[in-house]
Amino acid sequence: MQAVCGGSGTCGRCLIRIVSGDSSPAVHEKGAFPPMKKPGAGWRLACRFIPEGDITVFVPPESLTATQRLQLEGKAAETGADPVVVPVEIRPDYNRSGAGLPDDVLLRESLASAGIVVKKFQYPVLKELSGTLRQEEKVRLVVRQGDVTGVLHPGEALLGVAIDAGTTKLAGYLLDMETGEILARKAAMNPQIAYGEDVVNRIAHCAQHKDGRSRLRSVLLEKVNTMVQEMCGERGLSSGKIMEAVIVGNTVVHHLLCGFPVKQLGLSPYIPSVGEALDVAAAEFGLDISTGGRLYFPENIAGYIGGDHTAMLLATEQERSNGVVLALDIGTNTEVTLSAGGRTLSCACASGPAFEGAHIHYGMRASEGAIEGVMIGNGKVLISTIEDKPAVGLCGSGILDAVAELRKADIIDTRGCFVNSAAETVGEGMEKSFVLVPRNGSGSGRDITVCRRDINEIQLAKAAIRSGIDILLRKMDMKAEVLDRVIIAGAFGSYLNIKSAIRIGMLPRLTAEKFHQIGNAAGTGAMQMLLSSGKREAAGKIAKNIEFIELNSEPGFRDIFMQNMYI
Amino acid sequence: MQAVCGGSGTCGRCLIRIVSGDSSPAVHEKGAFPPMKKPGAGWRLACRFIPEGDITVFVPPESLTATQRLQLEGKAAETGADPVVVPVEIRPDYNRSGAGLPDDVLLRESLASAGIVVKKFQYPVLKELSGTLRQEEKVRLVVRQGDVTGVLHPGEALLGVAIDAGTTKLAGYLLDMETGEILARKAAMNPQIAYGEDVVNRIAHCAQHKDGRSRLRSVLLEKVNTMVQEMCGERGLSSGKIMEAVIVGNTVVHHLLCGFPVKQLGLSPYIPSVGEALDVAAAEFGLDISTGGRLYFPENIAGYIGGDHTAMLLATEQERSNGVVLALDIGTNTEVTLSAGGRTLSCACASGPAFEGAHIHYGMRASEGAIEGVMIGNGKVLISTIEDKPAVGLCGSGILDAVAELRKADIIDTRGCFVNSAAETVGEGMEKSFVLVPRNGSGSGRDITVCRRDINEIQLAKAAIRSGIDILLRKMDMKAEVLDRVIIAGAFGSYLNIKSAIRIGMLPRLTAEKFHQIGNAAGTGAMQMLLSSGKREAAGKIAKNIEFIELNSEPGFRDIFMQNMYI
Repeated sequence: MQAVCGGSGTCGRCLIRIVSGDSSPAVHEKGAFPPMKKPGAGWRLACRFIPEGDITVFVPPESLTATQRLQLEGKAAETGADPVVVPVEIRPDYNRSGAGLPDDVLLRESLASAGIVVKKFQYPVLKELSGTLRQEEKVRLVVRQGDVTGVLHPGEALLGVAIDAGTTKLAGYLLDMETGEILARKAAMNPQIAYGEDVVNRIAHCAQHKDGRSRLRSVLLEKVNTMVQEMCGERGLSSGKIMEAVIVGNTVVHHLLCGFPVKQLGLSPYIPSVGEALDVAAAEFGLDISTGGRLYFPENIAGYIGGDHTAMLLATEQERSNGVVLALDIGTNTEVTLSAGGRTLSCACASGPAFEGAHIHYGMRASEGAIEGVMIGNGKVLISTIEDKPAVGLCGSGILDAVAELRKADIIDTRGCFVNSAAETVGEGMEKSFVLVPRNGSGSGRDITVCRRDINEIQLAKAAIRSGIDILLRKMDMKAEVLDRVIIAGAFGSYLNIKSAIRIGMLPRLTAEKFHQIGNAAGTGAMQMLLSSGKREAAGKIAKNIEFIELNSEPGFRDIFMQNMYI
Repeated sequence: MQAVCGGSGTCGRCLIRIVSGDSSPAVHEKGAFPPMKKPGAGWRLACRFIPEGDITVFVPPESLTATQRLQLEGKAAETGADPVVVPVEIRPDYNRSGAGLPDDVLLRESLASAGIVVKKFQYPVLKELSGTLRQEEKVRLVVRQGDVTGVLHPGEALLGVAIDAGTTKLAGYLLDMETGEILARKAAMNPQIAYGEDVVNRIAHCAQHKDGRSRLRSVLLEKVNTMVQEMCGERGLSSGKIMEAVIVGNTVVHHLLCGFPVKQLGLSPYIPSVGEALDVAAAEFGLDISTGGRLYFPENIAGYIGGDHTAMLLATEQERSNGVVLALDIGTNTEVTLSAGGRTLSCACASGPAFEGAHIHYGMRASEGAIEGVMIGNGKVLISTIEDKPAVGLCGSGILDAVAELRKADIIDTRGCFVNSAAETVGEGMEKSFVLVPRNGSGSGRDITVCRRDINEIQLAKAAIRSGIDILLRKMDMKAEVLDRVIIAGAFGSYLNIKSAIRIGMLPRLTAEKFHQIGNAAGTGAMQMLLSSGKREAAGKIAKNIEFIELNSEPGFRDIFMQNMYI
């Protein structure tokens, strides 16, 4: 079931229809019923409805949480000259043990003879050392920043894992730390969705529920552990051999996963508890990898710009290193960064979950049967759907296309209002709707429409993003025309129709070759930090050098935003 | 119930008498029945006996594990110029947070303004930081080696705990880390006793039981956690505010508590898995103190010389720093150290558990009713017992006294054999016994005797210790007469009658003022290391500079040992 509001009965995403049986009055259901789905007609909110007897229920496809199309390409990572962990094979010099040298002392001396100075044997290693030493002629020690964090048998692979933990989606990568090869990939939904589809609702959930913070931590941690297990399982490997992990996420997901307080993130001035990079023992954290393994989170930049954006900026550092470059990570929260002449400005835009299909009447996530492309011409509507399944709703790129095409066909005006007599519409006011797919052509047996309210949501989202872009350009005293490149990252960003985005004014009007849709750059950055100490340092420098712009504090922001509502 | 052998039916310490009811044949009971307690007379081993119906049982006092007299004095520790953890009170400069600085970054910058450079905020601290910052004007940070490991409210005490984990006894000390004051003390029995009264039996238990190692670890860890809770409870303090802990123990107890392999400790050349000092997160270890607290174990010296001896040598460093000094820590395993002219030699003597009351016919631990002193003169026997309770058996100092007095009265000869007609004896051969307390005067209603076998056990124990002393003196090419001081540490060492020990030849014949019975020096050393980084370094140097002497490899050891059997 969908649950944008976290089960508080307000978002109306989980509508079901009671076909027969119990149909008690909807006392706990606060609102959000669309005009044709009133409780009187049997429609109810699944999150609030408690059946009092046997019932038959119809669950419309758009209420289901289907597997979402996730982007897992990520660039293959390269191993550098500065690996975070290195394996050292050593044959202990047992002749030294005539005097009864303890195993750790013997090994330290053998390593020193080989020119390797060890600072410390980590506690979990000490538990396994003696056993492995007595089974094998050689041992394969894992050395990390001078500490021995693992002991492997000869020939065993040194594994690492990178996780991009988004508000909605999780992407995992299992890597061979020596070759940089991606051994397995895994995509999953962030299970925190059940407690609020955006981060603001999750913060609210924590404020309202005493055990909210620990529950939101544990559901996500459990899911991450499952993903790690599954990736290892695919390759017949043991997660106990993973020595290093990197997790990137926005600041709220980061704080919720780490168990850090989030209350202050929900209140202006949105102060993170933790901004610095975190390097923690995996066992202490609860991540099920090697007992000596370590887990790294890069720097958060601000309350609404987290380590995932740091990772994205790291992955795109070269592309951003010369010229005037705009980099966007579009999602429920959209991060925008402008790099020019050695300066880097970043801001966070409250674009809302419209591009995830939320707050849109027939909106849905990018899963089977979602309309992802729309064309309107000569009074005809053409659509394309994911997996070419019968249409059941609109995902982000579909609704963006629809609005752009409605405007191009002059069915709506620059304010987003339907032009009287331009096309056939149903309903009135904010519910006035254009039928995109008639019920006889849809997969749900109902009309799929775009209403005035939906158009307004897209206007709000695009205005938020464009205003962020405009403010950053103004800060640099630049016009959009001087942009050399526009990098668009993230799953939605990859499927986005650039032309439509330009048409509605979300993106500046530039030639097509200036746009680069690069997929999950945050995941790529995470993999780079998994393999390279230098990349971690570089990420820290990037985060430190960013000039964070709080849009709400910028003079004239409201005017710019209102101006950008026009399409 | 006593259990020297760990319940394997061989030590005969847990004898009970079936008074009525079931009395099935003793098929599982291998031996160790004294002559007057044969299975035929109803005597059985409690560890092996499984009743088949209702029975009435007589449990003799010496079979009970009574609360033992433990020594908890320890010297009060002093705080030095180099504390391990320091509290830093800071009022964050919130004016800096106009730009929305994360809490950790703000705090780091505020600390830097105050001249304090912080390396890292430990993960558990980050969970509490934001909350405390928003409740208090000032925060009290705990800084350890540049890392922030704790966050306290203003005025909260900074606590530390030191534990001396002996084979038989545990001693705990709760300290105020700023003043060095001992806030509470606690003594307890090591619960591992149930799995073997000496370390060799515990190693054997681990070899024989798959879950032995984890069980021996968990019972001890649980007991230590309980002691810590109890000490805090006495002062109305929370164990969650303890930021630092030090535990000292012999190498086997250390390994068992840490979960390190012990198999190789039971086999020549008795290699420790871990010799270096261990500095581990308390949470990772399972010690229930502050989530950011750290736990420290000093260096082990060899397989049978552990961190408790390192601690004892640290505590006696000044006393050993000039002249020729012998230091002994007497127990089931006795460590002997000889310091002279900058050199320090140590050896471990397998003195056995006779001084703990084991392997002695009427032996018992130093608890209520144990005979602790014996005098024989004019054909009369005088005894003194612990707490002046009716005598039920002999503790270590009692049996030592008894043997010395029997020799002085010429009731036994230099070989430990009863001199015919010198005194009335009962029994024959190794069971030939001298009645110390007749049944009508004893607390158990039975004669308390010393038999030839008991005398032999004491001869073995004293020969082991004296041979260690002799070998170390020979290594230094010295005679006992040149000794300036003899330091005797440990609980038994404090109650030991020096005159008797000299008389039977356990200690060299020196004037009384050369002997120093100093109590629990290992506990004192542990407290010193709790408070001072310098003391930890000093302990490391002591351990490193020790020349360990493996007695069994010394030429002529067997001859010296046999010579020392004479009393």
